[in-house]
Amino acid sequence: MGNSPEETEQLRKIRAGDVRTASRLIRNLEDGLPEAKSSLKRIFPHTGRAHVVGITGAPGAGKSTLVDSLISSFRSNEKTVGVLAVDPTSPFTGGAILGDRIRMQRHAEDPGVFVRSLATRGALGGLAKAVGDAVHVMDVMGKEIVMVETVGTGQQEVEIINHSHTVIVVLVPGMGDEIQAIKAGIMEIADIFVINKADRDGAAQLMNELIAMLNMAPESASGWRPPVIRIGSVFEPVPFGESVAELSAAIGDHYRRLVETGLLGDRMRRKTMVEIHEALRDAILEPILKGLTESGEMEQIAGRVLRKESDPYTAAEEIARRCLK
Amino acid sequence: MGNSPEETEQLRKIRAGDVRTASRLIRNLEDGLPEAKSSLKRIFPHTGRAHVVGITGAPGAGKSTLVDSLISSFRSNEKTVGVLAVDPTSPFTGGAILGDRIRMQRHAEDPGVFVRSLATRGALGGLAKAVGDAVHVMDVMGKEIVMVETVGTGQQEVEIINHSHTVIVVLVPGMGDEIQAIKAGIMEIADIFVINKADRDGAAQLMNELIAMLNMAPESASGWRPPVIRIGSVFEPVPFGESVAELSAAIGDHYRRLVETGLLGDRMRRKTMVEIHEALRDAILEPILKGLTESGEMEQIAGRVLRKESDPYTAAEEIARRCLK
Repeated sequence: MGNSPEETEQLRKIRAGDVRTASRLIRNLEDGLPEAKSSLKRIFPHTGRAHVVGITGAPGAGKSTLVDSLISSFRSNEKTVGVLAVDPTSPFTGGAILGDRIRMQRHAEDPGVFVRSLATRGALGGLAKAVGDAVHVMDVMGKEIVMVETVGTGQQEVEIINHSHTVIVVLVPGMGDEIQAIKAGIMEIADIFVINKADRDGAAQLMNELIAMLNMAPESASGWRPPVIRIGSVFEPVPFGESVAELSAAIGDHYRRLVETGLLGDRMRRKTMVEIHEALRDAILEPILKGLTESGEMEQIAGRVLRKESDPYTAAEEIARRCLK
Repeated sequence: MGNSPEETEQLRKIRAGDVRTASRLIRNLEDGLPEAKSSLKRIFPHTGRAHVVGITGAPGAGKSTLVDSLISSFRSNEKTVGVLAVDPTSPFTGGAILGDRIRMQRHAEDPGVFVRSLATRGALGGLAKAVGDAVHVMDVMGKEIVMVETVGTGQQEVEIINHSHTVIVVLVPGMGDEIQAIKAGIMEIADIFVINKADRDGAAQLMNELIAMLNMAPESASGWRPPVIRIGSVFEPVPFGESVAELSAAIGDHYRRLVETGLLGDRMRRKTMVEIHEALRDAILEPILKGLTESGEMEQIAGRVLRKESDPYTAAEEIARRCLK
């Protein structure tokens, strides 16, 4: 059970916030290297201190710019910040298209800020797992706020959001956003709403619709009522800065409410359940898929199914019978 | 191995296009009923005739209206049509928010058209699997064209698109769509581009950007070059109708190209591989999760992980050792 000197050193460096060691571990976790998994087990007991903030909304809602402003706001309050930007993978190039390089450039020199983008290469819901892993690394680095910015909508996004304590939904006027958010199924999981680009036409209408919707919603267990924060154009310095400060204050308020009401424990439990599910997929399904692919059996099964000599469900049941005790 | 008279009757009715029998099977598949899985095995040998067309794009891009117009266009060419509208599930209400009822009302009386919406309740990527299952049912009903309309972007969407032979990406001017589409990682999988609401400002610019991007792309194995089709406002009857006819012709052209070049076989194989993966998840992981939850062991594991007495990865490995041969 003892750790090697290298392993002890890796843990020490990550806990000290060493960017190179942390970056390498995140990359190795993404690549699914077995030694990265061992590292994850070693760092796990040191997790649980970061406030994880999920930021979601339709593409084009201005989430990256908002996250960039929030970094500045948290830094001015002397909070350390981790940011995880989740880029959906191109199925062909297999990597993140928008990288760290073009994101949040101006924070690159600040040792209190650690920004990484993440993409996934795994077919079976690997993205949510990779997000959870990278959040753990940033947590152990001592980042007090870890922001997870996700692109897009849908079930996958909801899974990523499950790793957060506070969820911010970013809407934009004039995009039919109210409908978009309902469609995305993320309305009920919002702890804070942001109306971004609030100098655009339709901001007041969107505000009214949101408030009407919130008035109809049942009171939450914590008594928290999601605030709606309007943020104008970046090119309007004064109101922009003020509204970002309001947002970062609301993020802090929400966390304090979770702590005071004991609901933080519930969110931690939900997060843990999700992690166990993901780890089970990784430990059970992935090795079976790998074995079938490497032995060439997957090709044979596909051939039989294509010729209609079998079907996917019967083939899967046969494999289950063979693999499961 | 013999089927009961009820089973034979169900298969006969679905093959005859019976709406009630097909709807019930799709619902039962969504609900994960074991008898639905047996039905799926029975209908599987009769699949493989439909041309499956995936239609994707950002929320608000006007996909539903476009699908509605395509139905009319295919019907005027005497093609039978199935439509599967994929609504992301609300994690709280657990159902589709936009139902069949408000979609494509005017085709409700046409026996050559079958429209269903789909949502998923499963946590682990159940949506893509449910889509594949419902496409099979529509295929066996004899629908010549099956359109799968998905909302949103991201990995989940790419998985759904894997079930299609022809993929249409719908963009709208002035939404920063070019960036959106790249972010979504779906640009490379488009067989046809639609610039919808092409009477809006920015349509020409978007067209130019798309063409520039396509000019840089390597030639595809089939020699197919994705056409870019502009579709104006619904309230401009003549050009709208013409451009929809152009789109439905392009859909047919793409399919013929796939057949002529033999690439249809490659797409069928990819589709089959995805289905086998999904069936394996269903046959292997789901029963383990169910067992752990019902026995209360999942709660105990979560407790140990929360108290940092264990970690998700070690816990999952222990379960894997116990469950796998």
